[in-house]
Amino acid sequence: MWGGRFSKQMDDRFAYLNASLRFDWRLYAADIRGSRAYARALARAHLISEMERDALVDGLTRVEQEFDAGTFAAQPSDEDIHTAVERRLGELVGAVAGKLHTGRSRNDQVATDTRLFVLDTIRNLQFAIRNLQSAILEKSEQQLDVLMPGYTHLQRAQPILFSHWLMAYFWMLERDHARLRDCATRVSVLPLGAGALAGNALGIDRDFLARELGFARVSDNSIDAVSDRDFIAEFLFAAALIGAHLSRLGEDLVLYSSAEFGFVTLDDAYATGSSLMPQKKNPDAMELARGKAGRLIGDLMSLLVVLKGLPSSYNKDLQEDKEPLFDAVDTLDALLPVVAGVIRTLRVHADKMRAALDAAMLATDLADYLVRRGVPFRDAHRRVGEAVKLAETRGIALADLSLDAYKTIAPEFDAALKDVFDFARALAARETVGGTGPGAVRAQIGRAKGIIKE
Amino acid sequence: MWGGRFSKQMDDRFAYLNASLRFDWRLYAADIRGSRAYARALARAHLISEMERDALVDGLTRVEQEFDAGTFAAQPSDEDIHTAVERRLGELVGAVAGKLHTGRSRNDQVATDTRLFVLDTIRNLQFAIRNLQSAILEKSEQQLDVLMPGYTHLQRAQPILFSHWLMAYFWMLERDHARLRDCATRVSVLPLGAGALAGNALGIDRDFLARELGFARVSDNSIDAVSDRDFIAEFLFAAALIGAHLSRLGEDLVLYSSAEFGFVTLDDAYATGSSLMPQKKNPDAMELARGKAGRLIGDLMSLLVVLKGLPSSYNKDLQEDKEPLFDAVDTLDALLPVVAGVIRTLRVHADKMRAALDAAMLATDLADYLVRRGVPFRDAHRRVGEAVKLAETRGIALADLSLDAYKTIAPEFDAALKDVFDFARALAARETVGGTGPGAVRAQIGRAKGIIKE
Amino acid sequence: MWGGRFSKQMDDRFAYLNASLRFDWRLYAADIRGSRAYARALARAHLISEMERDALVDGLTRVEQEFDAGTFAAQPSDEDIHTAVERRLGELVGAVAGKLHTGRSRNDQVATDTRLFVLDTIRNLQFAIRNLQSAILEKSEQQLDVLMPGYTHLQRAQPILFSHWLMAYFWMLERDHARLRDCATRVSVLPLGAGALAGNALGIDRDFLARELGFARVSDNSIDAVSDRDFIAEFLFAAALIGAHLSRLGEDLVLYSSAEFGFVTLDDAYATGSSLMPQKKNPDAMELARGKAGRLIGDLMSLLVVLKGLPSSYNKDLQEDKEPLFDAVDTLDALLPVVAGVIRTLRVHADKMRAALDAAMLATDLADYLVRRGVPFRDAHRRVGEAVKLAETRGIALADLSLDAYKTIAPEFDAALKDVFDFARALAARETVGGTGPGAVRAQIGRAKGIIKE
Amino acid sequence: MWGGRFSKQMDDRFAYLNASLRFDWRLYAADIRGSRAYARALARAHLISEMERDALVDGLTRVEQEFDAGTFAAQPSDEDIHTAVERRLGELVGAVAGKLHTGRSRNDQVATDTRLFVLDTIRNLQFAIRNLQSAILEKSEQQLDVLMPGYTHLQRAQPILFSHWLMAYFWMLERDHARLRDCATRVSVLPLGAGALAGNALGIDRDFLARELGFARVSDNSIDAVSDRDFIAEFLFAAALIGAHLSRLGEDLVLYSSAEFGFVTLDDAYATGSSLMPQKKNPDAMELARGKAGRLIGDLMSLLVVLKGLPSSYNKDLQEDKEPLFDAVDTLDALLPVVAGVIRTLRVHADKMRAALDAAMLATDLADYLVRRGVPFRDAHRRVGEAVKLAETRGIALADLSLDAYKTIAPEFDAALKDVFDFARALAARETVGGTGPGAVRAQIGRAKGIIKE
Repeated sequence: MWGGRFSKQMDDRFAYLNASLRFDWRLYAADIRGSRAYARALARAHLISEMERDALVDGLTRVEQEFDAGTFAAQPSDEDIHTAVERRLGELVGAVAGKLHTGRSRNDQVATDTRLFVLDTIRNLQFAIRNLQSAILEKSEQQLDVLMPGYTHLQRAQPILFSHWLMAYFWMLERDHARLRDCATRVSVLPLGAGALAGNALGIDRDFLARELGFARVSDNSIDAVSDRDFIAEFLFAAALIGAHLSRLGEDLVLYSSAEFGFVTLDDAYATGSSLMPQKKNPDAMELARGKAGRLIGDLMSLLVVLKGLPSSYNKDLQEDKEPLFDAVDTLDALLPVVAGVIRTLRVHADKMRAALDAAMLATDLADYLVRRGVPFRDAHRRVGEAVKLAETRGIALADLSLDAYKTIAPEFDAALKDVFDFARALAARETVGGTGPGAVRAQIGRAKGIIKE
Repeated sequence: MWGGRFSKQMDDRFAYLNASLRFDWRLYAADIRGSRAYARALARAHLISEMERDALVDGLTRVEQEFDAGTFAAQPSDEDIHTAVERRLGELVGAVAGKLHTGRSRNDQVATDTRLFVLDTIRNLQFAIRNLQSAILEKSEQQLDVLMPGYTHLQRAQPILFSHWLMAYFWMLERDHARLRDCATRVSVLPLGAGALAGNALGIDRDFLARELGFARVSDNSIDAVSDRDFIAEFLFAAALIGAHLSRLGEDLVLYSSAEFGFVTLDDAYATGSSLMPQKKNPDAMELARGKAGRLIGDLMSLLVVLKGLPSSYNKDLQEDKEPLFDAVDTLDALLPVVAGVIRTLRVHADKMRAALDAAMLATDLADYLVRRGVPFRDAHRRVGEAVKLAETRGIALADLSLDAYKTIAPEFDAALKDVFDFARALAARETVGGTGPGAVRAQIGRAKGIIKE
Repeated sequence: MWGGRFSKQMDDRFAYLNASLRFDWRLYAADIRGSRAYARALARAHLISEMERDALVDGLTRVEQEFDAGTFAAQPSDEDIHTAVERRLGELVGAVAGKLHTGRSRNDQVATDTRLFVLDTIRNLQFAIRNLQSAILEKSEQQLDVLMPGYTHLQRAQPILFSHWLMAYFWMLERDHARLRDCATRVSVLPLGAGALAGNALGIDRDFLARELGFARVSDNSIDAVSDRDFIAEFLFAAALIGAHLSRLGEDLVLYSSAEFGFVTLDDAYATGSSLMPQKKNPDAMELARGKAGRLIGDLMSLLVVLKGLPSSYNKDLQEDKEPLFDAVDTLDALLPVVAGVIRTLRVHADKMRAALDAAMLATDLADYLVRRGVPFRDAHRRVGEAVKLAETRGIALADLSLDAYKTIAPEFDAALKDVFDFARALAARETVGGTGPGAVRAQIGRAKGIIKE
Repeated sequence: MWGGRFSKQMDDRFAYLNASLRFDWRLYAADIRGSRAYARALARAHLISEMERDALVDGLTRVEQEFDAGTFAAQPSDEDIHTAVERRLGELVGAVAGKLHTGRSRNDQVATDTRLFVLDTIRNLQFAIRNLQSAILEKSEQQLDVLMPGYTHLQRAQPILFSHWLMAYFWMLERDHARLRDCATRVSVLPLGAGALAGNALGIDRDFLARELGFARVSDNSIDAVSDRDFIAEFLFAAALIGAHLSRLGEDLVLYSSAEFGFVTLDDAYATGSSLMPQKKNPDAMELARGKAGRLIGDLMSLLVVLKGLPSSYNKDLQEDKEPLFDAVDTLDALLPVVAGVIRTLRVHADKMRAALDAAMLATDLADYLVRRGVPFRDAHRRVGEAVKLAETRGIALADLSLDAYKTIAPEFDAALKDVFDFARALAARETVGGTGPGAVRAQIGRAKGIIKE
């Protein structure tokens, strides 16, 4: 295709290293879509006739059908998806195929293809996120009356609603969704017409191309256009952060499904057994959710390293953008629906959670009780701390210390003290926006449903 | 502060490891601002009197003044900026200081402080980006008539305008600017009132707090609120990508200021010499611009690793968020103005650039010439490739092959051929949007100026 | 120092960016040690007199004493530790100081200093690792009779000895120790005498320098010598993997000290409380052990990015090697002794661990029982799996299924079945090398002690 | 295989996510080799008869032959390579196949397989490194008389030999080779016999297994054995650093093959053309060498993230170890021979290199000249710096300043001055070990050849 000035064949091992068809064939739909639009633009610029345009457009559609049907036969000379499509087009429509590349470079072509691919991907991924958010919402609504221990530092902290815990993941995913939306505005910029780096010399109408291909706008600078991979980096970052969120959910569910916590049971459909130990039921789905963050972060790092210190304009190093992109897309495509399935089928053991609440988790409420009786918080905190220590020394629960003992610690304690040791009441006190009070959580779920429906 | 239930002092080495004041003192202004707002909110909720509120607010302002003046004296017991401020406040205003933390946790407090800090930082950074963009614009306008070789694969490709090359960086920075803006919308969410993890039990008005502190909205879920560090990760990603862009500019300018290219000279104010070799003048500023991408990407990596697999809600691991954040901020604060200075003072050697243009860079125009004479592009490309090979074999420039030689290669060649070998004319043909044609570049600069002015 | 050919002062902001004294002062001892050796080498090569050598050596020692005493006064012109020392030396000994740099470049000088620093660091770090290994060994010996559940996938798997669990970390650290040793052989290569990049032109005896400074050998290629930072990358990798190991130990101990597991209690000296919740005791030390892996991995990433795509020989980007190095060193210096302290003071709750053993953890032994009666393992596994399911359905423990029920599942079951449900016996069966049998663990500890003593 | 206790099929999407055969089939040879050894060990322990052993060993060999021949037919139920082999073995040899897994877990099995794979890989990789080192040595010997500019900061610094520049890469690769060797000592530790985590209960002779499989020793702790992935991380680090080295060589050769440098030409067999610009010949092979560092570093990061914070013992997350490993192996397998081919076929333009030497590159020699006449180096450096500035001001070369002008700058200058401006002489002065003097470089090559031959 570019061999005119060369007097020697490529070394075989180099040809393998150089070729990208083994992974970039996935861009075929985007590539052919871009080429059809380009054929139309060539005709508009009178660089080809309308008949030639139709021959190209029809031929491209036939190539696409071969790919769709799985009958496309790659040749050893097909360096990448672009040359593969052009080669096959030539076989189907003859010499006119040689006009398709007029004024176009693989540099602007591949950038266009990849952007079309990422735009599609973002839409799919947003759908998968919404699906997982729906699973979270459904489960949260079903289990609205379940109390569980809330943890900080993995130590029991304060009673919360199970739904409140679960809904925390809704909002993480909501930010992921928003980041993808923002990313899409930067993906939706047409590079086609930038040529190799200097722009198109043949009067191609780039605005027409943008409209044809659904881009929001055209790129402002042809050098930037052919070497900008920011949109992939930004996508990979969004993917890495989704990965981090799923890894945290993975950790929580692995912990909660341990025998020691016993808060939840994964459905058999999402667990596996052991080849050696017959009793084992392992939460593999969520361990993978935790572990997959590794490759997603690795994919992001791969691309950032490629970009670092690269001379401006197109360099072949940029071919290394695609595999991390595809890997991240495939990883999330496979993972998100599984996590949604885990949530939908999760068995929640309200009794175990309830049993894990202990009186010491109301120590803050005890301090608040003193605050309401005029003790400065810092002082109240210290006194309740002493009560905790006293109870621990005596080997009894905080609720079982006598009123007299409490009065020794702070004279403000009185008979109303016993009302403090009521988990539901403690929860009910936290009704400010975003709190774990039942009303606040219901309102939270309401807001979430509104967002999902948009 | 929290020692009521403990019966032993902290181990010294652990105290050092655990403490964060040595780096989080930088949050003092944000911390005090947050505490003043919180004191007002406590009074609105009738948890403290108006007199107590005023005492707290005034005391906090005095603590702030000590920090501003550099007279604040840290104590060994000051675990972090929050305890340091509270301790000092107590010394200044007495027992009422113990009421400030009512219903508040360091978990929601530090999240609030950090968000205030990042919001400020984004504003400063956007300003520094605009400054560098201005430098690029000024230089681009000044040098609008300078032709240079455009490269792909670092091989001479096509003639471009120097301004077109430089403006490519304007658009990279413009995306950086936009990413920071999008990031800010996710930073501007108030965590205060989330308590340790379960929400506020004392009826604090979170909307009031948000208004007081300039947040766009309040967080939806208290568990998420205390452990969400996405905003820092997103900021660090934006910083890493700025770093990648500056590393590419660094690479270009290091190359262009080499003796071999000789296209530009850095001002003496931005270069250094050698301790051994008296003749050396090194482009250290741009080498550092290239190298600093390392730490910026490393900072992002650090935080992503911390987040991976963390149980939900607050865990102490999250204290590891601040040093990468501060490092990234400091790095860009130091680097961006220097790069702007380099650009502003850069000497551009139009003659050297012009001399580096060679006729072979017009091979594409030669192919276009054949295209206009009806030869399909792919065929034209092949024929021009043969001309290139022939010229190379004969050891002469492409422009110096005889018309007869050209005719042997393609009968479509005629006397008009000589007009092709005109760099300015080749440039002028690339006037589509985003192209390197002088008109297109002027229009590009015009759009850029419009953006800057906004 | 290098300003002869320059006609302008450095820009202030660039001077700040360019300068490294604010972090590389830490190399002062190494720098001065290297310079003393170099002065001696200059005298051996007759480039200075013996009197001059003595003046330099004595002057350098005085500069070192100022640093040691904290009285060294840095000047704004001190670009880095090398210029700072040379400037001060000149003030102390006069013009002869100007001879010290003869034939030396900061390029070979800083490489030498950093290698000396890393060699020292490795020794210290190996000592800190040995200290943590000793803590592990002591605790393992003390608690040799404690049974606990062994987990895979965080699900109870098989009974193990607590000491066996803990000793797993001994061997991870042993590999870390070995990696540092291997790394040291690649650090112990002298760059001094490589000059800026081309080697020394004045006949300096590099073997003498190596002996003086304790390097095992001299570098083979001067270009490589001035730009090789592999030894730092290798060190940072070793540090990152130590970080990964400590993060796993952190995770384990955070889990085990949760109320749900309750296996261990951290000493009050290594835990902290909550500013809001008076009852909290948080395992901060081990959360930090888990979180610090982030910065250690980030430090490694930083340097690898700096190295990527760098032209050969010295480039200023390499100045970015030091801060990640120092950060990693400081992190491990602070962390390792704390982790050792946590282990030494850890309270182990044998009763809680014992209570967490359940009969199902002997399912593998049940399968082995069938194997010994001639049932192929895969078949035995399936049958025991059915027993597990049956017991679960009936809501009883595996040990409580009747012999009749067992016989229905596999006729090979007989009265000896009841002997299987004995945790100590199950443990005792695993006495192959590396197994959890008490004898095997004692042997393991014996091997470990042998290693430590070396 | 493990379904006895389960009452439900796996969800299809989870089954896909969970399965690893699509990538771990590559371990088939290692898996079967390990199983043959295990069958022998079972017989030695009298757990199976000799006849059963032979049936298993022969069956396994038949399975291996199917894989070798590409006729192995995977089934949907084949979760991973281990279950695939065991399933097929059962089809071939019947019920006895069910005895193979006696006392073995996939946890110790996969760890063993992977270690066998990495040991093989290291051997292959060391061979590929030696091949590239040979190419470097051959080219260095061929071109021993070629002078070129040596650079620091990409500014011309001092004249060096081309061979000296090239040999710098020999030593980088030599360290890579050594790191792989050190890594191999930590890979060569047998996990088999560790069972799921607690060790083998059936008296398997692990030392026998180690001998059979060629491991240097057996693992010391079964928990560590099943979850140790340090050896992969260490391998990936070694691979990442090889990647960094090749990226630097890539950068150098991309620069040197630019029109501006013109020092070398890549053979047509290792270059490509442009789809748009007929004249282009691009150094794609070396751009890919530069860019591939991204994925190699990304692979390392992936695994480190997976390991971070993982509970001890086996967790499913560890399944994420294989794809980065395979990717790194494939990347280096494809890349190293291509780079060797590039070096072997590289055309070196001695004339262009020579033409790039300029007199200013001898400024250090000029300073040394003054040093030999008693001027302290620092002073000599300053004076030569002034000469450089003077020559630059006058627009002439440093060698063209008159002796009178020199004398004004330093009275020590005399007629011998003209001898300094001789590149070959300057080179010849740098004959200390590792220097660029022709003798030193020949000695360097001699040492390198000795190493290669070992």
